[in-house]
Amino acid sequence: MDDRVREHAEILVEWSARVGPGDDVVVDVAEGAHELGVAVAEKLGEVGATVTTTYGSGELTRAYLTAHDGDFGASAAEKAMLEAADVYLRLGGGRNTAAMADVAADTRQAYSRARTGVREARMDTDWVSTVHPTRSLAQQAGMSYEAYREFVYDAVCRDWEALAAEMAQVKELLDAGEVVRIVTERDDQPRTDVTMSISGRTAVNSAASVAYDSHNLPSGEVFTAPYDTTGEVFFDVPMTIEGRRVRDVRLVFEDGEVVEFDAGTGEEAIETVLNTDPGARRLGELGIGMNREIDRFTDNILFDEKMGDTVHLALGRAYDANLPDGESGTESAVHVDLITDMSAASRIEIDGDVIQRNGTFRFEEGFEDKSEEESEDGGGNR
Amino acid sequence: MDDRVREHAEILVEWSARVGPGDDVVVDVAEGAHELGVAVAEKLGEVGATVTTTYGSGELTRAYLTAHDGDFGASAAEKAMLEAADVYLRLGGGRNTAAMADVAADTRQAYSRARTGVREARMDTDWVSTVHPTRSLAQQAGMSYEAYREFVYDAVCRDWEALAAEMAQVKELLDAGEVVRIVTERDDQPRTDVTMSISGRTAVNSAASVAYDSHNLPSGEVFTAPYDTTGEVFFDVPMTIEGRRVRDVRLVFEDGEVVEFDAGTGEEAIETVLNTDPGARRLGELGIGMNREIDRFTDNILFDEKMGDTVHLALGRAYDANLPDGESGTESAVHVDLITDMSAASRIEIDGDVIQRNGTFRFEEGFEDKSEEESEDGGGNR
Repeated sequence: MDDRVREHAEILVEWSARVGPGDDVVVDVAEGAHELGVAVAEKLGEVGATVTTTYGSGELTRAYLTAHDGDFGASAAEKAMLEAADVYLRLGGGRNTAAMADVAADTRQAYSRARTGVREARMDTDWVSTVHPTRSLAQQAGMSYEAYREFVYDAVCRDWEALAAEMAQVKELLDAGEVVRIVTERDDQPRTDVTMSISGRTAVNSAASVAYDSHNLPSGEVFTAPYDTTGEVFFDVPMTIEGRRVRDVRLVFEDGEVVEFDAGTGEEAIETVLNTDPGARRLGELGIGMNREIDRFTDNILFDEKMGDTVHLALGRAYDANLPDGESGTESAVHVDLITDMSAASRIEIDGDVIQRNGTFRFEEGFEDKSEEESEDGGGNR
Repeated sequence: MDDRVREHAEILVEWSARVGPGDDVVVDVAEGAHELGVAVAEKLGEVGATVTTTYGSGELTRAYLTAHDGDFGASAAEKAMLEAADVYLRLGGGRNTAAMADVAADTRQAYSRARTGVREARMDTDWVSTVHPTRSLAQQAGMSYEAYREFVYDAVCRDWEALAAEMAQVKELLDAGEVVRIVTERDDQPRTDVTMSISGRTAVNSAASVAYDSHNLPSGEVFTAPYDTTGEVFFDVPMTIEGRRVRDVRLVFEDGEVVEFDAGTGEEAIETVLNTDPGARRLGELGIGMNREIDRFTDNILFDEKMGDTVHLALGRAYDANLPDGESGTESAVHVDLITDMSAASRIEIDGDVIQRNGTFRFEEGFEDKSEEESEDGGGNR
């Protein structure tokens, strides 16, 4: 076995999920994630946890959903298992990212609704979601298998403690701030100039560990739950939403709500999302991507939204971790992330202070140089 | 998908497990059984059952067991899942039948002991065990993949109702009988002449359905729980016991217990079995194989013990289904089946009446001819 598979398993079990002796762990192994499953089982044996292994297969789910009359029930067995579990580790990595492409959206939604209790039981565990690099995911990313493996392990096998310390600085700025403004001004695309309130909300330092309220490996973002959004945003990073390719989405917000939208590709997918429910027209998340080992788009939201020098805004549901106890944020059946590149001709302001310019944070070396660059080439408007 | 995979799934779900709408079904999919898993998921969707899928992998289990310090705990999550389940379907079929060959026997036993509660919860469901024909199982059988698939589907895709009716005749004879005698007299091997009491015991008509107290697909045997065994038996069908090849086993019984034994191959494996506990020296099962589509040895007990024209005797644990309520039969940690060919120079007697001669039952055509054959060539001793 490749050493990096073992390293991935070690980070997942020890750093991310903080598994201890006697912990009851459910491991969901996707069709193509067998090898990572073996490494995780080995690590869990070493730690002295117990392990129950479930099988995650798009092909099985598709077969079940397409044969069913649509009046779905929930599995009491699955719910009981998750309620008794301490930790849930999802090892993604299928053999065909389009395995469920011919399942009707309303069938999927009905199934998802029937499984609300199962999902809630899962979210009550110390859950972590990761992926094993498969050929199918490499293909989705438009990359060779070897290059994709390098990419995944570079993103996953990081010094998370160091990245957490770096991200803590951004969390501090967001926690203290009231209004965020995001601006991009590029000749070849519509401008972004959007403001949103974050007052009273708590940012999550998403350092790929349940100890940080973070449930993805890799992670590497700081996110909060904005409201009262006003202005326009252009998202130049492509996406796949419910199997449909989407890019160059432009949204216009007034009083916290999307009032106008268009897209270069996949406009009807965005329309479907926006029409899901009232919450789908509001933002649930502002995330700042800080994992610079993720240096390219790979058409997988687990990676894309953590890309260094990007921000993402999610339409729909807000995360409880961002909200004061008892307060509710945007509620919706959807949570759809849209990403914009911040590496050039861009800035993020908090309460009027620039905290990132052209991808460089104000606590990083070169921040002043970037500022000068910008003045020299006439960019910026302050 | 091959139609036979769908037919296999249909027989499993409908005939064997009798799954109905709303039933809570756990499906365990082995590493190589994905395709059957898809067909079973489709069938369960059609029936309107719920499905939770677990993953059965020798490689994962090996990794876990070899890394663990040996002080195993049980998974409360797995137990809770099985306690909430109505049906458990095990889809066997790995990619390497030797995947666990280097796990120490005492490690396996300790793990198995720790999981007693999990196993009991599983046995309390309507469970059925089957296998998907994999290349690994074909190799174990010494057969090409195509020929092995034919073999498996011939054994599985039967008219079970018709076979159940045929087997009912043997069940009736065993239920009414008191003493069974098995005799083989072949020039090239030690003779078999063994008698055992079956009085008060109930035979199971194992017709591959929970409705018949039968939990294997394929099945096709009638079995009961004998006691007070006396005499000698020669088992000429080869076996694999805990990864070791065993053949030509000879056992001598006195007062229900093995008092002498030898084997052409794997004698130490038999010795290990016999020394497990006191019950391991007694019989737990007498089975009469009646699935004539299983016409060859394939080194897989699921098939071998149901082979037409064979009988098998198991050292160790008796099945509750054979015992009157409240009565206990042989108790042991082991249940090891040993098989002998009955197709020639052989007979089974119940209370002195021959019920099978040279593989032909007395209710079958040709029984009298067999009797004459035997007289003509001087075989038989009556």
